[in-house]
Amino acid sequence: MNHTDDSGKHLHRVLIIGAGFAGLSAAQALAHSPVEITLVDRRNFHLFQPLLYQVATAGLNPSDIAWPIRSILRRQKNVQVILGEVSGVSPNEHTVSLGDGRLLSYDWLILATGSTHTYFGHDDWSSVAGGLKRIDDATLLRRRILLAFERAESATNPVDQKRLLTFFVIGGGPTGVELAGALAELSRKTLASDFRSIHPDQTRIILVEGGPRLLPTFSEDLSAFAATELARMGVEIWLKSTVSSCTADGIVASGARHEAGTILWAAGVAASPAARWIGASADRAGRVLVDSNLRVQGVSDIFAVGDTAAVMQDGKPVPGIAPAAKQQGRYVANAIDSLVRDGTLPRTFHYRHYGNLATIGRHSAVIDFGRLHLKGWLAWWIWGLAHIYFLIGTRNRLLVAMQWFFSYLTYGRGARLIVGSDTQPVAPSTGDQA
Amino acid sequence: MNHTDDSGKHLHRVLIIGAGFAGLSAAQALAHSPVEITLVDRRNFHLFQPLLYQVATAGLNPSDIAWPIRSILRRQKNVQVILGEVSGVSPNEHTVSLGDGRLLSYDWLILATGSTHTYFGHDDWSSVAGGLKRIDDATLLRRRILLAFERAESATNPVDQKRLLTFFVIGGGPTGVELAGALAELSRKTLASDFRSIHPDQTRIILVEGGPRLLPTFSEDLSAFAATELARMGVEIWLKSTVSSCTADGIVASGARHEAGTILWAAGVAASPAARWIGASADRAGRVLVDSNLRVQGVSDIFAVGDTAAVMQDGKPVPGIAPAAKQQGRYVANAIDSLVRDGTLPRTFHYRHYGNLATIGRHSAVIDFGRLHLKGWLAWWIWGLAHIYFLIGTRNRLLVAMQWFFSYLTYGRGARLIVGSDTQPVAPSTGDQA
Repeated sequence: MNHTDDSGKHLHRVLIIGAGFAGLSAAQALAHSPVEITLVDRRNFHLFQPLLYQVATAGLNPSDIAWPIRSILRRQKNVQVILGEVSGVSPNEHTVSLGDGRLLSYDWLILATGSTHTYFGHDDWSSVAGGLKRIDDATLLRRRILLAFERAESATNPVDQKRLLTFFVIGGGPTGVELAGALAELSRKTLASDFRSIHPDQTRIILVEGGPRLLPTFSEDLSAFAATELARMGVEIWLKSTVSSCTADGIVASGARHEAGTILWAAGVAASPAARWIGASADRAGRVLVDSNLRVQGVSDIFAVGDTAAVMQDGKPVPGIAPAAKQQGRYVANAIDSLVRDGTLPRTFHYRHYGNLATIGRHSAVIDFGRLHLKGWLAWWIWGLAHIYFLIGTRNRLLVAMQWFFSYLTYGRGARLIVGSDTQPVAPSTGDQA
Repeated sequence: MNHTDDSGKHLHRVLIIGAGFAGLSAAQALAHSPVEITLVDRRNFHLFQPLLYQVATAGLNPSDIAWPIRSILRRQKNVQVILGEVSGVSPNEHTVSLGDGRLLSYDWLILATGSTHTYFGHDDWSSVAGGLKRIDDATLLRRRILLAFERAESATNPVDQKRLLTFFVIGGGPTGVELAGALAELSRKTLASDFRSIHPDQTRIILVEGGPRLLPTFSEDLSAFAATELARMGVEIWLKSTVSSCTADGIVASGARHEAGTILWAAGVAASPAARWIGASADRAGRVLVDSNLRVQGVSDIFAVGDTAAVMQDGKPVPGIAPAAKQQGRYVANAIDSLVRDGTLPRTFHYRHYGNLATIGRHSAVIDFGRLHLKGWLAWWIWGLAHIYFLIGTRNRLLVAMQWFFSYLTYGRGARLIVGSDTQPVAPSTGDQA
């Protein structure tokens, strides 16, 4: 690596941990800065997380929503990509250590390690209630969902069949709503004629939410619309329902026991352990407290962005969604560029909220633009176009568009492979950087 | 299931084990026969094995070459698909037992369980020299190949780098030639600008063959052409070279020790244990001996087809390629139809050989049509069109065509995800039915 610029000056080293939306945006926004960037991730790909639920429900292939980091950055010569798992940070020595013993030093550090799902202290639920943060989570869920139908087809008594065809989705936020909707379509349309002994349209899909309504971050009319649409598609919705147990054969919700073959976890999100690495203050969800320039409180050369950071604005937390992560990544890149060039900080970070999106199923979605509320097919088309547009790489955009087009025309889901085994890592993960 | 036809007669039960080319063809050819078909496979998909090497070398996604069996057969109402692993066959009781304890009875049994790779008695090589028969084999190889480059990029000394960038492909048949060619392109074109510390075009790819020439089943001029083309692409070819050891860090070939980071096994093929299940006579490779109607010798109600059967014609074995398997599957379906309808057997099986195909790399292939030998770009286009044409399902055909088109235009390989872990099953497998 070249450690000096053309005039012989030492180049500032920027180390970015995590190649999600925040970290990748920061790296890309630093393309023309006089810095030397190292981007570390424990996966070799950038993942388009908003569509992960489609992998879990066999609508898309893993490679449709993941793109090798090296490919994305191959033309940006001031960045080196390292595949590695961070084991610790020494703010005093300005170094980051990797699991294999390597030591990376930095002048500026950007923590963009994302979040993982959490079971609110019930870590034993992780083996039976699969969450959805990583590709491996999604393929594992897909495997379990498809195997549930296969096992129901082979079951010799109706009690087992009924249990195997019962799916609980825990958590009524966007991910839970999207999973429930996609499961309803998978069972009632895609798989409808595939089996001989069972009728997949008898599948029970139950969406369990602790609060009084679905999609709590959306307006009330859109919550109500989502509930009506899901009900029309055959999803049962249990509101104000608290889950107190998850086991291999069912759950306990609001004190009552219910049998189930598959449990999908879309409830809790916690930050990765970045705060612990640097001994920084964190909020209840483990997110690092940052100042108005997104610097870790009291540490001037470490920034935290995306789901790793607790960013407050107008007394409210900035939401953990892709556009917010990208804005933070770009802001920090700009801040470092400014600091490196003339030692000044730009004006404080300001998050611009464009809206909340959630899809309910084929041809139905809700978008909350604040004053403007969209629902139904128009929202679905905007949702689809927005997602295709934001997928990185021409090839992926076209492939996803084609895949959707085919799914749409045929209700056929080609991504229905049961591969691997249940020994794959489930969750919760620590320090997830993909 | 309906066990009688419209006139109340008992329907003959046909049980097919394995949904590869042979088993699936048999099931499809029985669509209009008065039989009740059960198709058992331990995977839920049919795999287009001839393109598996492209998954291993990150050119295609697993789902591009695999298709859910239930989807393929959804409209064929006389077939039931069962996901299950066969644990034994009782020819006297006319039953097949599955690993989960289920018992399936049959009037006619078709063994189409395919083949697996073999290490000629060196089963300990399986953990370091990955073979290529199943999707999981291919994703494991892909993982190892891509990780070798990642590790070389991180290596701190040139000796480790050199070792990690050395790939041995053992076996100079079509699979070995295809793997070596695809590896050469992956390293010299696709990955060329992805790394900063290593130069992937310094990768050594060595193709090791025990015999005197590559592609021994092809004509000599095509063998020579393949060797020249591979050499031009930077592949080293070692002929008459015997491998006596494979370890995590290298091989011993013809007595000399060579360091390597990755070993790919394309040498030995053995039949699945179907012969052992039924206590039948088998040849040296474990293939069941059959009569001229493809019935297991001495057992009138069990057929063996595809790689499971040792089919001889004009004193030579029928090759273990997809067209041969399909012809055998269709023949047996026809035989059973005839036996069920009027108790007669059709004339004996006759294999019609159309030719041998192998691709060497982008824009180069060899086809041996017997009298006509094609090589170079024309052969490559015929090879490509033939493979796209034979992929099942409109959607797959278009996706594969698009994927190839993009790869072709951009040398970009989108299927480059490192997922899962090395704990996935490696090989050799027993009773592979996919």
